Amino acid sequence: MQISPSILSADFANLERELKAIANADWAHVDVMDNHFVPNLTLGLPVVEALLRVSPVPVDCHLMIDDPDRWAPGYAEAGARSVTFHVEAAADPVATARAIRSAGARAAFAVKPGTAFAPYEDLLPEVDMVLVMTVEPGFGGQSFMADQMAKVRQVREAVGRHGGEVWIQVDGGVSAATIEQCAEAGADVFVAGSAVYGQESAASAVDELRALAERHRHPA
Amino acid sequence: MQISPSILSADFANLERELKAIANADWAHVDVMDNHFVPNLTLGLPVVEALLRVSPVPVDCHLMIDDPDRWAPGYAEAGARSVTFHVEAAADPVATARAIRSAGARAAFAVKPGTAFAPYEDLLPEVDMVLVMTVEPGFGGQSFMADQMAKVRQVREAVGRHGGEVWIQVDGGVSAATIEQCAEAGADVFVAGSAVYGQESAASAVDELRALAERHRHPA
Repeated sequence: MQISPSILSADFANLERELKAIANADWAHVDVMDNHFVPNLTLGLPVVEALLRVSPVPVDCHLMIDDPDRWAPGYAEAGARSVTFHVEAAADPVATARAIRSAGARAAFAVKPGTAFAPYEDLLPEVDMVLVMTVEPGFGGQSFMADQMAKVRQVREAVGRHGGEVWIQVDGGVSAATIEQCAEAGADVFVAGSAVYGQESAASAVDELRALAERHRHPA
Repeated sequence: MQISPSILSADFANLERELKAIANADWAHVDVMDNHFVPNLTLGLPVVEALLRVSPVPVDCHLMIDDPDRWAPGYAEAGARSVTFHVEAAADPVATARAIRSAGARAAFAVKPGTAFAPYEDLLPEVDMVLVMTVEPGFGGQSFMADQMAKVRQVREAVGRHGGEVWIQVDGGVSAATIEQCAEAGADVFVAGSAVYGQESAASAVDELRALAERHRHPA
């Protein structure tokens, strides 16, 4: 059970300090948005490169951008240990996943709340993780969509059939109030923004979220 | 003669510190790129909002993005004191400039090296500054294009005819080696990236660049 705090809720003027505050996390989750795939523009490769130089934990890039086929491999080449692209934006998800893995990173694909998982089940052998969005991507601080738990269970069953080791990540509105149902449905990597950076101690929040998830771990 | 250091050459993991290092500058220049108008993705409004909370100098946003008509006013509303959009990307530059000014910021338009100024001269009453790019926008560290000085002179003459007070900014490859010719041609706001943040003391570099520009000020 892994916690990946999202720096979308951190202080962008002091990201080194904010990353060092979550040194007990499993990952640092970085939301890349381009004003096109989603109606917000956050940060891109030059900022990620700076974060990679100072992050105490591996960097998990979530690309909410158009044309990930073109851009995703660059994040892996820069040193991100996990790179997630959206199937809705990818022209050739197999080639993109393979390019990410070739560059030494874990590859993942994401599905928005309105995107069904079933048409993408065949991609499982090509990836190391599936990201099930539990809010509409674009902004931090949104309310958790519990109806996406059915999709998490569906991905968990598909991963069982597939037999490989594919993680399931949830992202959006994940907090102490919602992480248990995510874990029970089958998620094992939890992105949390305000539930970490909005708390008095980000590090304590990470530990508490991980403990909650562990206690509600889905059946193997 | 004003110096606007570009944080594109700063440490993105410690932007508060990097901004405080140029407290003697006139502006902090922030390059917003969206992977579409230019082939790079830097940072957007959530990062600018964080910078505005800590910057010791006014923030000068240069939007190298598609659809500035939609996005530019938001930067002014957030508190950027100058917002520059590209004429090549704007559907309605007059409306966009007016929206920026209505939100309390100085409005400016930029022209890429391959874009002629003459077709946009009629916009002068709508703006407070014209940005003449002296490199192809998209990346820091590029070589200065001296051939753009003819365009700077052309803008200076047009501003003289127009009679208002419109500043002329140059951006790209501006350094101690190139700032004099920019000043002589008529520029009065100088963006400098590596020529400030690549130096041992960013603050000393700002003072030196300003002194060089002052000594080569264009005739009033």
